[in-house]
Amino acid sequence: MRAVDLIRRKRDSGELTSEEIHELITAYTRGDVPDYQMSAWLMAVVLRGMSRAEIAALTEAMLHSGSVLDFSGLAGRKVDKHSTGGVGDKTSLVIAPIVAAGGLKVPMISGRGLGHSGGTLDKLESIPGFNVNLSLTEFRRVLEKCGCALIGQTAEIAPADKKIYALRDVTGTVESAALICASIMSKKLAEGIDALVLDVKTGSGAFMKNLDDAAGLADLLVETGKRMGKNVVALLTDMNQPLGRTAGNVLEVAESIEVLAGGGPGDLRELCLELAAWMFFLGERVKSVEEGKKLSADLIASGQARKKFREIVELQGGDTAAIDDPARLPQARRRLDVCSATAGYVVSIHCEHLGVAGVVLGGGREKKEDKIDPAVGLTFHKRIGDRVDRNEPLCTLHYNSDARLGEAKRLTESAYSIAREPASVPPLLYRVIGA
Amino acid sequence: MRAVDLIRRKRDSGELTSEEIHELITAYTRGDVPDYQMSAWLMAVVLRGMSRAEIAALTEAMLHSGSVLDFSGLAGRKVDKHSTGGVGDKTSLVIAPIVAAGGLKVPMISGRGLGHSGGTLDKLESIPGFNVNLSLTEFRRVLEKCGCALIGQTAEIAPADKKIYALRDVTGTVESAALICASIMSKKLAEGIDALVLDVKTGSGAFMKNLDDAAGLADLLVETGKRMGKNVVALLTDMNQPLGRTAGNVLEVAESIEVLAGGGPGDLRELCLELAAWMFFLGERVKSVEEGKKLSADLIASGQARKKFREIVELQGGDTAAIDDPARLPQARRRLDVCSATAGYVVSIHCEHLGVAGVVLGGGREKKEDKIDPAVGLTFHKRIGDRVDRNEPLCTLHYNSDARLGEAKRLTESAYSIAREPASVPPLLYRVIGA
Repeated sequence: MRAVDLIRRKRDSGELTSEEIHELITAYTRGDVPDYQMSAWLMAVVLRGMSRAEIAALTEAMLHSGSVLDFSGLAGRKVDKHSTGGVGDKTSLVIAPIVAAGGLKVPMISGRGLGHSGGTLDKLESIPGFNVNLSLTEFRRVLEKCGCALIGQTAEIAPADKKIYALRDVTGTVESAALICASIMSKKLAEGIDALVLDVKTGSGAFMKNLDDAAGLADLLVETGKRMGKNVVALLTDMNQPLGRTAGNVLEVAESIEVLAGGGPGDLRELCLELAAWMFFLGERVKSVEEGKKLSADLIASGQARKKFREIVELQGGDTAAIDDPARLPQARRRLDVCSATAGYVVSIHCEHLGVAGVVLGGGREKKEDKIDPAVGLTFHKRIGDRVDRNEPLCTLHYNSDARLGEAKRLTESAYSIAREPASVPPLLYRVIGA
Repeated sequence: MRAVDLIRRKRDSGELTSEEIHELITAYTRGDVPDYQMSAWLMAVVLRGMSRAEIAALTEAMLHSGSVLDFSGLAGRKVDKHSTGGVGDKTSLVIAPIVAAGGLKVPMISGRGLGHSGGTLDKLESIPGFNVNLSLTEFRRVLEKCGCALIGQTAEIAPADKKIYALRDVTGTVESAALICASIMSKKLAEGIDALVLDVKTGSGAFMKNLDDAAGLADLLVETGKRMGKNVVALLTDMNQPLGRTAGNVLEVAESIEVLAGGGPGDLRELCLELAAWMFFLGERVKSVEEGKKLSADLIASGQARKKFREIVELQGGDTAAIDDPARLPQARRRLDVCSATAGYVVSIHCEHLGVAGVVLGGGREKKEDKIDPAVGLTFHKRIGDRVDRNEPLCTLHYNSDARLGEAKRLTESAYSIAREPASVPPLLYRVIGA
């Protein structure tokens, strides 16, 4: 294999064989193909696309660039969920304990906040003491003990993805459904799972703003997972407004505990039940999604889900007292209400701006090295369709430093569109792909 | 400027400003933009193209990445010729002395053989002692003394082009009219010339196989040169068969001397007169191309062109005895005739194969480090339209080692198509662009 020949072939819209893709990825991971050849190839992929067979081969090559976990010795089906990211999406914290409480195994490898979108690892780390950097041996031990463990990508998992992702970030080659698919699926399939529920988000707060693009990606993810012999569905869900009432690491942990305790906002609760139900269904724990929803609701009502969450936190070194009383989690010192300038109805929300406002307050990273402040964030008081009076708070900023407060305030104000007449409210779930 | 933003813009078919292109090229030449970002940008350029304004800006940025020679203190217009390369194209060796003998200045910076195509520097170096590696000061001195100097690209000339060209070679980003144009024009304009005649070749032995592609490139080159305030035309010429009767460094020097002495094959002589005439015309030495042709023919007939060639060779350290008697140039020890298997007419020639055969014999490089054998090459006995008998020689291989003789022979045999009926003969010159 000469890398330049594969670059030229892709540039000219040709197809690469599975062997060629494996060789290229292996050689790149080893350092035998330099970054400048890989970035040229990635750009050709972005502009020329890849066939389904090529995407499957790329996913497989990236998957096998590192360890693939094998939990076949553990009783019970292994299932996971992955979301493409949005604002206020804390579903992982709710559904992982529900599904583990229901008897399935959830070996969940998550990511950090990216751009305007939050990340499960950052949220978990806002619980004092919570360790997401378990070794694979510890990961297995926690999983065995309580049916769920939540960690970050280790050096052993899909190292090709790690290296390629860092390169894509600085070479304008992030925006490719093929590359996004291979990146997601290689990591998720390395978890040794039997089934996967994908939450593909679309709307102003999602990476895929447009429903068709999101549906295309969902379709690709499902097909790629199925080619690898996994049980996969994708839920196409709305991200035209934040999910739930909060965005910000501590705020979201507290809100997740609310849902686990039987409360919490309706949209968040509903999506958690839907996702957990699909996990139960694909994990063959129930015969229908409806049955899965009922099981999930029962596990919340009986307190088992919340107990499971406490158990995970304990096993991963977190402060359980803070879980029992979320008021003990770190709180921001100051608050500022952002109010509506006019009376009317919220007709749309530029959800990405709200996510960026959270980053600006210090809750996310602008550069990889940035430290985040777990306590800051936003509480949302109004959703699309809600009536609002003049000077009524739309949302509240929780902050510790006013260095960039003005910027966060402007972003938040500009995010809400208010009109005299109410507009249609987007559905929570558009459709399920692959069912 | 963030390089990744410029990459993304080009990826999405956007246009870059002249300032952005300058910043990118300057930062890359300095080493502030890494190879992996430049290669992603180059691939985006290959697939998305560039506007005429962008190409001009790129050419200018590459031109000004190094020294731009200034010969305005020297009397007489400065003119040059550039060919896109082919098999047997030795016109530079003939026309540079003609045009200098006619009173114009020819500061010619040439290249080496590339792929199947020969290079002026390699041909000149087959003259014992000839030094193409003059410093810019020596270059000026020779130019002042005899009106012409022939050297290779120095480190001072368009260093951005040197760095980008090396990267393009290994990242599948050679095939872009925009990048080819900027590469050619940045080097040529660095010569401090007033006018430039481009010989854009098309056909089976050219890099542009197809007439439309070649015309597109010619058009781009001419427009870019004119935007820079230069007098430029492009001759679209045929490369469906070798130019003249030889390919190979020593063989081509000898053939060039034949033309300068008033002999040589008709096609080569004709194209040399045509190119020299355009140089005289653009250099305002004559009032018409016809007059330029007559002047060129006169300079040959009077012996002044040949004398000028001898003068250049002498000033650049070459052995003038070998010029006076080309039989003293290094000769290959052995010869092999490649004969026709059938009787008929030569209807087409795969000219690139003949060029590759020359490389295989040792006359060109497969890798940059390869040393070349100046004496080897091919003599062509038949052109398209010629009648050939069974077992009559089509061409003769001149070789020193029979290590890869079989391969060269097979390539040569396969290059000629013989049919019962003659086919049409391609013209030497298709058209002139920019006149």
